[in-house]
Amino acid sequence: MTADDLKELDAQLADRSVTRRPTVPALEERLFRPIPCLDHGFVRVVDYMGDDSAVVQAARVSYGKGTKTATDDRGLIRYLMRHRHTTPLEMCELKLHVKLPIFVARQWIRHRTANVNEYSARYSIMDREFYLPRPEDLARQSTNNKQGRGDVLDAETAEDVLRLLRRDHEQAYDTYEKLIDDGLARELARMNLSVGFYTQWYWKVDLHNLLHFLALRIDPHAQYEIRVYGEAIAEAVKAWVPHCWEAFEDYRLRSFNLSGPMLGVVRRMLAGEDVSVANSGLSKREWTELMEAVQPSSSEAGR
Amino acid sequence: MTADDLKELDAQLADRSVTRRPTVPALEERLFRPIPCLDHGFVRVVDYMGDDSAVVQAARVSYGKGTKTATDDRGLIRYLMRHRHTTPLEMCELKLHVKLPIFVARQWIRHRTANVNEYSARYSIMDREFYLPRPEDLARQSTNNKQGRGDVLDAETAEDVLRLLRRDHEQAYDTYEKLIDDGLARELARMNLSVGFYTQWYWKVDLHNLLHFLALRIDPHAQYEIRVYGEAIAEAVKAWVPHCWEAFEDYRLRSFNLSGPMLGVVRRMLAGEDVSVANSGLSKREWTELMEAVQPSSSEAGR
Amino acid sequence: MTADDLKELDAQLADRSVTRRPTVPALEERLFRPIPCLDHGFVRVVDYMGDDSAVVQAARVSYGKGTKTATDDRGLIRYLMRHRHTTPLEMCELKLHVKLPIFVARQWIRHRTANVNEYSARYSIMDREFYLPRPEDLARQSTNNKQGRGDVLDAETAEDVLRLLRRDHEQAYDTYEKLIDDGLARELARMNLSVGFYTQWYWKVDLHNLLHFLALRIDPHAQYEIRVYGEAIAEAVKAWVPHCWEAFEDYRLRSFNLSGPMLGVVRRMLAGEDVSVANSGLSKREWTELMEAVQPSSSEAGR
Amino acid sequence: MTADDLKELDAQLADRSVTRRPTVPALEERLFRPIPCLDHGFVRVVDYMGDDSAVVQAARVSYGKGTKTATDDRGLIRYLMRHRHTTPLEMCELKLHVKLPIFVARQWIRHRTANVNEYSARYSIMDREFYLPRPEDLARQSTNNKQGRGDVLDAETAEDVLRLLRRDHEQAYDTYEKLIDDGLARELARMNLSVGFYTQWYWKVDLHNLLHFLALRIDPHAQYEIRVYGEAIAEAVKAWVPHCWEAFEDYRLRSFNLSGPMLGVVRRMLAGEDVSVANSGLSKREWTELMEAVQPSSSEAGR
Repeated sequence: MTADDLKELDAQLADRSVTRRPTVPALEERLFRPIPCLDHGFVRVVDYMGDDSAVVQAARVSYGKGTKTATDDRGLIRYLMRHRHTTPLEMCELKLHVKLPIFVARQWIRHRTANVNEYSARYSIMDREFYLPRPEDLARQSTNNKQGRGDVLDAETAEDVLRLLRRDHEQAYDTYEKLIDDGLARELARMNLSVGFYTQWYWKVDLHNLLHFLALRIDPHAQYEIRVYGEAIAEAVKAWVPHCWEAFEDYRLRSFNLSGPMLGVVRRMLAGEDVSVANSGLSKREWTELMEAVQPSSSEAGR
Repeated sequence: MTADDLKELDAQLADRSVTRRPTVPALEERLFRPIPCLDHGFVRVVDYMGDDSAVVQAARVSYGKGTKTATDDRGLIRYLMRHRHTTPLEMCELKLHVKLPIFVARQWIRHRTANVNEYSARYSIMDREFYLPRPEDLARQSTNNKQGRGDVLDAETAEDVLRLLRRDHEQAYDTYEKLIDDGLARELARMNLSVGFYTQWYWKVDLHNLLHFLALRIDPHAQYEIRVYGEAIAEAVKAWVPHCWEAFEDYRLRSFNLSGPMLGVVRRMLAGEDVSVANSGLSKREWTELMEAVQPSSSEAGR
Repeated sequence: MTADDLKELDAQLADRSVTRRPTVPALEERLFRPIPCLDHGFVRVVDYMGDDSAVVQAARVSYGKGTKTATDDRGLIRYLMRHRHTTPLEMCELKLHVKLPIFVARQWIRHRTANVNEYSARYSIMDREFYLPRPEDLARQSTNNKQGRGDVLDAETAEDVLRLLRRDHEQAYDTYEKLIDDGLARELARMNLSVGFYTQWYWKVDLHNLLHFLALRIDPHAQYEIRVYGEAIAEAVKAWVPHCWEAFEDYRLRSFNLSGPMLGVVRRMLAGEDVSVANSGLSKREWTELMEAVQPSSSEAGR
Repeated sequence: MTADDLKELDAQLADRSVTRRPTVPALEERLFRPIPCLDHGFVRVVDYMGDDSAVVQAARVSYGKGTKTATDDRGLIRYLMRHRHTTPLEMCELKLHVKLPIFVARQWIRHRTANVNEYSARYSIMDREFYLPRPEDLARQSTNNKQGRGDVLDAETAEDVLRLLRRDHEQAYDTYEKLIDDGLARELARMNLSVGFYTQWYWKVDLHNLLHFLALRIDPHAQYEIRVYGEAIAEAVKAWVPHCWEAFEDYRLRSFNLSGPMLGVVRRMLAGEDVSVANSGLSKREWTELMEAVQPSSSEAGR
């Protein structure tokens, strides 16, 4: 961060006022502070609306006099999450300032129900900041998953890869700088920069859509580079709405969806039948997914 | 339907042209024909875009050269549905003309990702058409579910209820008619009509959002009156995109979502442990939901 | 409001905490206080995110180093509004608690980009509260506008109308109460209630979509009953984001959109030509709209 | 296009079937045929739903018996467009297959109300195809518009710029190819490719949102490279829904929005007053915008 940025940050941290709005001290502490992501990126929470109680409040207007009874807040939130009654979650809102490589931004923006203001390379000059993976994050193309990574590269190959990436990115930026200096329009010169360069944006989203984003983006199948951001945001969400987060973990993150055919297999197994892939009626792939989820040895949820 | 309506319908059914667009003969046959719903309502498909192949085509552009290999269309659609890769489903679109009671319309409109044009009671005069349940659909408030029905009313009470409903609706319409005749603005006079009166609209939605609508609205927990419409639409969808529908049934409708804690219980049971509600760590409600889903005797999926 | 409601309101008003978030004292003062609308309704602001500066902050991230220069906040907001650069407005969010007649709710819900939790008549029992217009709001059907009101009814007719409306609403509620007492499911009994009965909801929306809502709903062509709510909200918005509101008034509310053909007419007139409806090339309707907007005598903006 | 692509295209063009759906011969002719855009890109219409009559049909359900009278289709569409009654336009849908540079895709995707399936560089290998502007499209940064182009570069500089762009893009792709060959995961290797490389997607949108997209993207302020796509799509829309397009041109594209203050100035001028920037109450910038729009010499609409 530049000196100017730090000055602005200090000002934000120092500024306090009195409000009647629901306030979450655990999130106030984190407000504005950048959480580093990858080599030059960050996520920072810059504003929020609502808390666990706001979810409950909205649910109770729906249920009206029907639920003025016992259920406590935590229980009600768990009920909502279990039954996918998600509209009360939309009553909370989070605003983030994010600095991220363009290829991560391209995955992120696919979540359409959010508000975005991105740095414009038509108006402004891009910085010489691009993402270079750590050697331990340089992995081979997965052999069994067309969309994923397998083994980590050996040290020598990794070094070679990084040398090439650095060379091309530096050269691309040198050219960009020269084109700008020669007077070429910014909107044209930026064409030379790779999707590894950093951009930044303000991103605002409601809690329901944020949890959906996190479910997809902290999943092991998500690309590592966006997962880093997902996990940083998850920490903030945990501090902000702890009951919602707990319920989300139990009913979404650690849950396993049994398809109709899988459910049939589980029933047969519980009835003592000896079910194998051959007589299960499942495809081999589904059988494997099921076994990984339900076998006693499995240490983790099935996602 | 009035004579005018029938004439228009005949014209629509007779009109044929040649197209290069994907065409589904099984849906063409049903096009424009009203499927009766409740006592005066209907659903009719008035246009569609895409078919099972359009879903596959869109998925393949994502996977590009990565999947030019074996997987057949049905298999790919099942894969998409199982892993909730839902964007290719958005490439199909259905347009319906629906006549429905206002209270059903009020539930329906909560699905925001759709296009709607509704009959306007500000511009136009409402018809004397209101919904009266059949005696066998008149049920008591459920005792264990605040949002549902229990036993059917006995014949005498049912008759009494229907008499009152009919009396009030007829009177409300008489008054409405008188107010209109006296010159009161339509937008004011309609205030006297109950949410049992029929309205109508054109409703257009993509297949992903339509399936989400159906998952909620043909669920046994949905109010009977909207379920009737859901089931009528489901028949049309089945004719339109049979592979998508089959996958939707297997992976959504008949599926059961095991929460993290439930998954733990299933693992213990499969390992031969004798698990009871007491040592399960589940709430009583969750235990019951789980048992209903996985016990050998259960004849149906747990949704 | 019931004693319980008042107690809750007092608690909300008394509760204060310290926050680092942008805070707007002028809106804090209004927080939670119901603004009465129609005979039994209200709007109250229950939460907000952002302020004028948040709009500027989001715009500046887009323009980046390109605008670190002069333009002050007010000027930048006016520029954004004039050129319909609306995404920075999405960075502010308002949450309202609204009590409103069902027919107003049915118009309101057509604005899809918002979050809603409504009182459920499936779960809960509706109150005996329905809207009765004041005599001076009882108007005749407009003769030149199919969707509007004309002259106010004479006192006697008005009294007659109100008598009928009250009679039918009271009877409808009596029946509703009886059906509930007889054990009929709430989701069925509510069918007897008219669209004049009050419902309530929490409604959360971003500033861009809120201004769009207000542009349509405080327009003289909007139905009076929703306009009342629009105007109450407008007052809150004015207190919350005064620069945005001022720009919205100048560039949206008081603006007039000259179509291509109208623009041609204005040019000819300014060049001294004597243009009449006959040689204008405009339809009679467009000519009238244009004259009403630009003639010196017109005292008001053209919307 | 590859031989495979051409074969597929031929198959699509040859395939014809009979349908009862609204069909537009002028668009059928264009179906599937790529319209070239930039050096390697294209747009092609792959499906559509609805036509001018579908807009009218949806509008008429709103107006119901209120408009069974005279107004012809063209007049009704013009009325809808003039008064921004845009929901009936949502009843038409267009599906495009587009090949475009990544930086154009990044602007395009900001239009959120659309369905997208994009080629995935995680699954698949990118082609050696990148955008190089024609020399006459290489312009200097505008001096009076931070987000735009000014004069075209002289021939020598242009040549120099193109040499650098080509060199860096070729080298970036060579590196990409090497990294893939060395086994690096695709999702990592693609990081080296610039935003000038081509991607492709299926993009589906309703007519209302499409016209909004076009209003922004064929505007002279839009970046040239996306305008090329906008104009190609505009031609297809004109063939598809000619009445909607004509109304869109008159009431949106060629229209000029007079702000409240501008409207006051026009009134004073029409009343014969001699208004100058000094006594107009407008900022210098707004005055210029107004004069450019309304002065007799102005040959074009003011957008």
